[in-house]
Amino acid sequence: MSSSAPTGPITILPIPGIPEIQPGDELTRLIVDAAQLCGSPLQDGDVLVVTQKVVSKAEGRLVDVPSGDKQARWRLAEQEAVRVLRRTSQILITQTRHGFVCASSGIDNSNVAEGKVALLPLDPDLSARRIRSKVAHLCGKDIAVVISDTFGRAWRNGQTDVAIGVAGMEPLIDYRGTTDTFGQTLAVTSIAIADELAGAAEMVMGKADQVAAAIVRGARFQKGDGTARELVREVSDDLFR
Amino acid sequence: MSSSAPTGPITILPIPGIPEIQPGDELTRLIVDAAQLCGSPLQDGDVLVVTQKVVSKAEGRLVDVPSGDKQARWRLAEQEAVRVLRRTSQILITQTRHGFVCASSGIDNSNVAEGKVALLPLDPDLSARRIRSKVAHLCGKDIAVVISDTFGRAWRNGQTDVAIGVAGMEPLIDYRGTTDTFGQTLAVTSIAIADELAGAAEMVMGKADQVAAAIVRGARFQKGDGTARELVREVSDDLFR
Repeated sequence: MSSSAPTGPITILPIPGIPEIQPGDELTRLIVDAAQLCGSPLQDGDVLVVTQKVVSKAEGRLVDVPSGDKQARWRLAEQEAVRVLRRTSQILITQTRHGFVCASSGIDNSNVAEGKVALLPLDPDLSARRIRSKVAHLCGKDIAVVISDTFGRAWRNGQTDVAIGVAGMEPLIDYRGTTDTFGQTLAVTSIAIADELAGAAEMVMGKADQVAAAIVRGARFQKGDGTARELVREVSDDLFR
Repeated sequence: MSSSAPTGPITILPIPGIPEIQPGDELTRLIVDAAQLCGSPLQDGDVLVVTQKVVSKAEGRLVDVPSGDKQARWRLAEQEAVRVLRRTSQILITQTRHGFVCASSGIDNSNVAEGKVALLPLDPDLSARRIRSKVAHLCGKDIAVVISDTFGRAWRNGQTDVAIGVAGMEPLIDYRGTTDTFGQTLAVTSIAIADELAGAAEMVMGKADQVAAAIVRGARFQKGDGTARELVREVSDDLFR
């Protein structure tokens, strides 16, 4: 398996200069141009990590909600959810239609014009596949794409970026059957490389800087037609709650 | 706050060539030498990510357990735990004395000589601080250190590397009070940068390659005397389970 070959350095390149995105904008073209302009044109084998927020904006996933109207936002979050896991006066934790467990079905108003909130893309894997195809069309490069969002998690404080959509790659590296340097079977069974890529890219994006995309260059991953749904653990299999 | 300044590229450099570690080995010296030899000497501002396994080996945290004796290993895991969260025929999920929730109290035999298992370091923050001091002593560089381990998580398939010990940095970036490009308060309250650093470093380490340490260069983080215990969420605050 290629993913067990030794690896060289990995570089994470922010793509600054992507303009404020409006519904219907050609997001991929704007990203490709910004990458070119900042001196980091896309190359074969790159992973392009794009934040959910700009994908949602480009796809018109914006809804009018009066600023500060938490009840209205929560009603919307419930509409986007298949179930509500927790509800306090401060926070609503839901499982989205995609299967993701997060606060408010991933709905928030950060970096969105006042009076609006952004919903998650309807099908983030499809969003990722479209970006990947468009990159191939625009500059002939064979890349993988990760759509990232910032989620809280159980047991640990602080949020991290994770993958909600992928294209051109397998989101998990399967280590079953691999042996260690002593010839013993590894305890690790699979690594969520798509989540590690999203978290790595977050480090160059910040939260208030409007760096909405980044390139991870030199990472080893398995090319393929994986989907972020593989990252969603079936409740029946979940022993970590 | 320095962490809200725009950032440039980040580079993740594997440190190959660290020999098999024995109890009592001068781990930091071996890492510093290997980094020098592979052409990536440590620099001020670097984050040195070291896997738990080599730290545990150097600190002699190895216990004899007959190969394949799962019951003996689980008894050990229970001794290292403050509570058992789940137990099936396949897996034991515990909370360790440090507060971490993981499989088998972090005990495993991957990359450990046959007939032995490695326990987590007694105090991974102290391990990190010792490595940081030793680096300052050996080569005069002011770095941060993250001790990483590979954990499963709730809701999502696949494991990722997270921080179990830190030194010279704050493990969380606090975004409370920061505003977005529209002047609105951010939905994100804090980013677990230490976990993102650990996950990023995992990508150059692989699992069977014996790359036990990596350098993350160019990441922005807040210098400080933080501890990985800040990453442990109090059960009473945990709405994500």
